[in-house]
Amino acid sequence: MPSDLAFDDPTSDVMLDAASGVRRSVLPGGVRLLTQTDRSVRSASLGLWLPVGSRDERPEHAGSTHALEHLLFKGTGRRTAMDIATAFDEVGGDSNAVTAKEHTLYYGRVRSADVPMAIDVLTDMITASLLTPEALETEREVILEELAMAEDDPTDVGYETFLSDVLGPDTAVGRPVGGTVSNVSSLDIEDVRAHYREHYRPDNLVVTAVGDIDHDELAELLGAGLRRGGWSLESGSLPTHRPSGAGAVGPAPTVGADVGAIAPHRLVRPAEQNHIYLGGPGISAVSEDRHTLSVLMSVLGGGMSSRLFQHIREQRGLAYSVYSFTAGYRDVGLFGLYAACRPGRTGQVVDLLAAELTQMGADGIGEDELSRAKGQITGTFALGLEDTSSRMGRLGTIELVHGRYTSVDETLAKISQVDAPAVRDLAARLGESFSTRVEIGPDA
Amino acid sequence: MPSDLAFDDPTSDVMLDAASGVRRSVLPGGVRLLTQTDRSVRSASLGLWLPVGSRDERPEHAGSTHALEHLLFKGTGRRTAMDIATAFDEVGGDSNAVTAKEHTLYYGRVRSADVPMAIDVLTDMITASLLTPEALETEREVILEELAMAEDDPTDVGYETFLSDVLGPDTAVGRPVGGTVSNVSSLDIEDVRAHYREHYRPDNLVVTAVGDIDHDELAELLGAGLRRGGWSLESGSLPTHRPSGAGAVGPAPTVGADVGAIAPHRLVRPAEQNHIYLGGPGISAVSEDRHTLSVLMSVLGGGMSSRLFQHIREQRGLAYSVYSFTAGYRDVGLFGLYAACRPGRTGQVVDLLAAELTQMGADGIGEDELSRAKGQITGTFALGLEDTSSRMGRLGTIELVHGRYTSVDETLAKISQVDAPAVRDLAARLGESFSTRVEIGPDA
Repeated sequence: MPSDLAFDDPTSDVMLDAASGVRRSVLPGGVRLLTQTDRSVRSASLGLWLPVGSRDERPEHAGSTHALEHLLFKGTGRRTAMDIATAFDEVGGDSNAVTAKEHTLYYGRVRSADVPMAIDVLTDMITASLLTPEALETEREVILEELAMAEDDPTDVGYETFLSDVLGPDTAVGRPVGGTVSNVSSLDIEDVRAHYREHYRPDNLVVTAVGDIDHDELAELLGAGLRRGGWSLESGSLPTHRPSGAGAVGPAPTVGADVGAIAPHRLVRPAEQNHIYLGGPGISAVSEDRHTLSVLMSVLGGGMSSRLFQHIREQRGLAYSVYSFTAGYRDVGLFGLYAACRPGRTGQVVDLLAAELTQMGADGIGEDELSRAKGQITGTFALGLEDTSSRMGRLGTIELVHGRYTSVDETLAKISQVDAPAVRDLAARLGESFSTRVEIGPDA
Repeated sequence: MPSDLAFDDPTSDVMLDAASGVRRSVLPGGVRLLTQTDRSVRSASLGLWLPVGSRDERPEHAGSTHALEHLLFKGTGRRTAMDIATAFDEVGGDSNAVTAKEHTLYYGRVRSADVPMAIDVLTDMITASLLTPEALETEREVILEELAMAEDDPTDVGYETFLSDVLGPDTAVGRPVGGTVSNVSSLDIEDVRAHYREHYRPDNLVVTAVGDIDHDELAELLGAGLRRGGWSLESGSLPTHRPSGAGAVGPAPTVGADVGAIAPHRLVRPAEQNHIYLGGPGISAVSEDRHTLSVLMSVLGGGMSSRLFQHIREQRGLAYSVYSFTAGYRDVGLFGLYAACRPGRTGQVVDLLAAELTQMGADGIGEDELSRAKGQITGTFALGLEDTSSRMGRLGTIELVHGRYTSVDETLAKISQVDAPAVRDLAARLGESFSTRVEIGPDA
């Protein structure tokens, strides 16, 4: 099987990975179905994905992606909100939804016998939601409570502020996923309906399923469910592929490595701890550098043996929570270093955070660190594969983000090829990209 | 196999459940080992349990259980803190620890080939920790950061305050697990060492393991690891069973059902939301009523179809997060109702929360609700069994809390026997037990 099987043949129905049982087909209407059958479990994880997130909103519909996600649980022509809630609850299944910057996901995990029910309910929700003004009025209040909860969480506010500062507060990708209180307060049901009509279409829909399922049976159930909700599924329709930013890297660094020169964006709140977010533009989700980045992040701040954890927590006791993180989108990305500490230590912790990356850019990493990072990534991957939900998520990422199949072994082979000089070079590039320092907490 | 196989034969080595492959043996020194072999996975979840938690601390050692848990990661005669961190990280495994009111757990999840390493490291930590004053000085700062983080989280402070108010702030079980800033600041290494010597003994140790493991091999590895750390494991030693509170129920209700008469314990903080905790004494972890309680909690506040979710969130939009909860200990327990909302709605939400339980006590539940709750509990159980970590945890609870084996089928049979009148009666009893109302957030 070719390693770079790209998904540009609209009529394809292929076994992508015979060893792992991963199969992909394009169904009538352009609906894409990716499955991995695993008969060692008696359950399945299912995901219905739309390649639409907050960055795809028209400015006048800001907040509509997330509001729509809420409203799809509020009733269809065949089911009340209570019916939808009951369907999964009464069989002990999980079901929920996630709105992100570049996609929306409705998912469920149920026992094998409940798969037809799960497909029926999830397809009903995405095809036949009533989207009434009354439902929006109630759900608007729920969303305003959700935003109030987020506003009370300093790590939520700090992280969103950091993302917005790095990516640009006026850009679509930099805006908060859920919108603002003002957006949500002024949202009209017609905005939500327009957003729905524009994006919730067969050629946008990707379905992924892993577990005790049969691909062809699932295709039947899916087609029947979507048609029941009134979607016409025409033979020969092509999936819509979003423009890929393949290989793109983030914006050019806006400042050099002089972290001390970055004015902190300070949000003062009465609290015990300051939360520090320090970082800048990174690499996109499809950059070829992403495997090097995985290794770098493992060494820098990926576990209890990482440099940040050892130097800031274990040796100096300056923080309880300290780590590094990244986010990648189709054309941009970012990296960040995080720690929380009592206010008198903030300056010292900021200096130590920045110094770790700067030093890695100057001196590189040891072979022992390289080998440990590869072991960590490989082992984490292997353990993750025992969970149908994480495999279901991987299939969605393959389709929505990469548009081509890569087996786990191929991904691990890429990781194994990363060498220490590549990590040092990437660390040096990131070290020159520091642009943003957000602090939320009490005054020092 | 008898359903009530009790663990009072100190020399037992028995297959507790041949169908599920659950086996228990008492090793030299009185160490108990419970395993469930599952060859469908290529990994194992391991847990080392001590039946010792914050409620077992001598008052002069308050905070020592949690501090000790931290210190066990700080180095042994054979391993530095970095070695311990590296051991699990470099194979991509998980490892961490939990301190609770009645137990302490050190756990790991690794691939099959790494099980010997995991047992070696975990036994090294619990037998041969250096417990140096220098390590305590560093870790004290980390713990103070952890307490500062908890102090900034209103749900953490609200929940701890609620527990303390219901169980009694001056009781051992009512104290916060991690101790207070004052406890931790004054903790001396000798306190921690005394706590260690008193409780970390072979006859207190319970080991549970689920996954791709062999019971006898694990027993060998465990014995070798414990002896290497200097523990003498004498043949014929008996496990220490803690006194069981079998069938005990919580303290008598302190007030009647007039929730309006309970003075709120208000913690005023600037924030967007108020967090409400309303409840009182419930039932212990070993009460025969616990199956009825599971059903009651499912109907009342256990999912999206529950009464609290439907009536407070779905229909009225008054909250984003709303649920019911319980906690059970060996002789006492509690129940609670939780919601978070913007301050102007607090009074209405408190009334609605209380009314749901009161009404269930008066009118009972419908057969449809009963059947849905049983389906939810059964399905959740079945899905949980696909995860080795949750099965590992179940074996620990069986040994530490119940002291007798119950198969999943037997537990589900008990659930299936719960009837609607029993739920109504328990709801009525709990409804008369309301004693405590904690609110944390801004002034109304």
